[in-house]
Amino acid sequence: MTRRSSVGVTAPEGFRASGIHCGIRNHKPDLALVVSDRPASAAAVYTSNAVKAAPLTRNREALARTGGAARALVVNSGNANACTGEQGDHAARWTAEHAGRLLGIPSDEVLVASTGVIGRQLPLDRIAEGLPLAVDLLSIDGGPSAARAILTTDTHIKETVEQVEGPCGGYTIGGMTKGSGMIHPDMATTLGFVTTDAAAAPETLLRALRAATDRSYNRVSVDGDTSTNDMIVILANGASGVTVPEGDPGFEQALTHVLVHLAKEIARDGEGATRLITVRVTGAATEADALAVSRTISTSPLVKTAVFGSDANWGRILAAAGRSGVAVDGAAMTLAIGGLEVLGPGYHSEFSEAEATHLLSQPEVEIRLDLGLGHAEATTWTCDLNQRYVDINAGYRT
Amino acid sequence: MTRRSSVGVTAPEGFRASGIHCGIRNHKPDLALVVSDRPASAAAVYTSNAVKAAPLTRNREALARTGGAARALVVNSGNANACTGEQGDHAARWTAEHAGRLLGIPSDEVLVASTGVIGRQLPLDRIAEGLPLAVDLLSIDGGPSAARAILTTDTHIKETVEQVEGPCGGYTIGGMTKGSGMIHPDMATTLGFVTTDAAAAPETLLRALRAATDRSYNRVSVDGDTSTNDMIVILANGASGVTVPEGDPGFEQALTHVLVHLAKEIARDGEGATRLITVRVTGAATEADALAVSRTISTSPLVKTAVFGSDANWGRILAAAGRSGVAVDGAAMTLAIGGLEVLGPGYHSEFSEAEATHLLSQPEVEIRLDLGLGHAEATTWTCDLNQRYVDINAGYRT
Repeated sequence: MTRRSSVGVTAPEGFRASGIHCGIRNHKPDLALVVSDRPASAAAVYTSNAVKAAPLTRNREALARTGGAARALVVNSGNANACTGEQGDHAARWTAEHAGRLLGIPSDEVLVASTGVIGRQLPLDRIAEGLPLAVDLLSIDGGPSAARAILTTDTHIKETVEQVEGPCGGYTIGGMTKGSGMIHPDMATTLGFVTTDAAAAPETLLRALRAATDRSYNRVSVDGDTSTNDMIVILANGASGVTVPEGDPGFEQALTHVLVHLAKEIARDGEGATRLITVRVTGAATEADALAVSRTISTSPLVKTAVFGSDANWGRILAAAGRSGVAVDGAAMTLAIGGLEVLGPGYHSEFSEAEATHLLSQPEVEIRLDLGLGHAEATTWTCDLNQRYVDINAGYRT
Repeated sequence: MTRRSSVGVTAPEGFRASGIHCGIRNHKPDLALVVSDRPASAAAVYTSNAVKAAPLTRNREALARTGGAARALVVNSGNANACTGEQGDHAARWTAEHAGRLLGIPSDEVLVASTGVIGRQLPLDRIAEGLPLAVDLLSIDGGPSAARAILTTDTHIKETVEQVEGPCGGYTIGGMTKGSGMIHPDMATTLGFVTTDAAAAPETLLRALRAATDRSYNRVSVDGDTSTNDMIVILANGASGVTVPEGDPGFEQALTHVLVHLAKEIARDGEGATRLITVRVTGAATEADALAVSRTISTSPLVKTAVFGSDANWGRILAAAGRSGVAVDGAAMTLAIGGLEVLGPGYHSEFSEAEATHLLSQPEVEIRLDLGLGHAEATTWTCDLNQRYVDINAGYRT
């Protein structure tokens, strides 16, 4: 007997998934399918990039037509179906229609997503050949296979699960995502897929998804580049028998927890990354100020290379804070790296370089900067920048 | 007989310079002196970073006191005198006072600048020991020595000269600058020093300097990090007998030419750089739009690594344009790399990959993106991103 996955998109009841190799990429899984065994509601957030990939436009139109009903996801890696013109629009529609026929559901209830090289036409013959196999392999333990098939330069699959005890009963939220380049906070910064066996109205889902995305995916950066294909989709099928009340803070909180976990996994597995860096900024006048400072530090190549070199170069962190657009005062700041205070107010700096180097060499590094200006705070996540990032990206397409 | 330098800060008449090793850095020249043999007017622009190094505050105050008169520059490398508190403020003042005494001029007419590691106190004993030697070595062919002493991670000195035939006669403008990391467009993005033997009122100098900086230094990016120490200073001593009339477009144009040359040299010698990349965006609705798109492409790590890999990955260029905040339309764009059209309207892309790779392998690469939306244009400069940038920055401080 097949056992339901304990994490990922098949952890909630009533979802099956599969991941196969259909030939878009060489020798790697490249087609994922996720299906609810009953009708489901859905919501999605999309990239803010003005150059949008074909699947995004298509999903937005489909969800508008169904009023927020969708129960299947088809995701391919190896080809972004972006900058592909009308032929690309057709390919997105065709993929949904073909999957809908095979699954016996309306094509508008199939959402599509693509990730990979920009500017090449999707090879529909391979998708046509692969989809029947993907349907055949659908399984309640198929989450990990699906999670593998959506990866690009990632080094490992990224899944999570959250068990929620709500006011109306218990339910499960599962998720998967992929990195690991072209990652920057700007309304959903990569592909993320979430399933839940709670029932929820599309508006409830969308409101919670937007709030959760803002505190998770929108706070992670690998390289400052925002993709054309970014999208997070949630499907809610109600298989648990529990309905999420409109505005339920518990659901939003649990969803945020799921997305924060996935977002951190993206930073941890950023292209070439050897460290997950958490940048917590406290003592700000407003949360917006704290977030601006945290983001600027998270995206500074000089800070990221210094962490790679295990170099407690606190001047670079202050310099990044200084160019954040926030009226900061260097002399008021306190800075700790991995819990070790390296700078106190009045630019007082006295610490053990050896201890700092040791703390900076750990797989998880926390930079905590207190601005000394108020009580608001914000956290973002990033990774170190090293030679592997260049190795990966200098020859990605060829 | 010593001959005046043909380029650099000693090319204009009446300026002498020197560069020596005083012991701030190991085995490298680290102290530069530039002096006009007669009174001169001056203007300066400074970093927009909220965390400002001590020399900037001190120069601003000194120029306010003298009403824009200054005739000497003391510049050290190896130590930024930034985030150094009151002790750092004192060090900047002390350096100017000591140099003023040695040169027999008011200390307020000595401007100071520092570049190097942030957060360490300036070793005043070494500057005290070095300054007399620097004064002794002042020479009309000392420009290259001064240009060498202001470098940090640069691989070569950066000097230029411009002969100007104005309405009132001929004069010379010379300049030197340094790179090569923490470079980003934001009101003067590194150290730049310009001398001219024209006479000009401080207000005339400042207006021209601001306009020229906006079209040069503010359009070059190596890594998106803005320094705490950025400053460009111009000294005008009138030794040519020519006075620049207020609002003379020729002077602003010549100064822009000088600063564009120096800014391009910075990008060409960006940390680890193997290519100078010119990003020219045409066909925009407004110049501000063109500049925003050009800057976003210039700072995209994915574009910069693709150029390093000689990979004509035009999708990354379009993706960068798409996240610039400008309402662009990918299907309206035309893109050429080194003069080779790789993308036409409607996402039409047909070109020789071999030729594109050849063009991308040249030391100078031009990316020209026409947005197809209007007639405005703007150009920025950057360099490729490669493993050497990481090598340099992972261990810079230690």
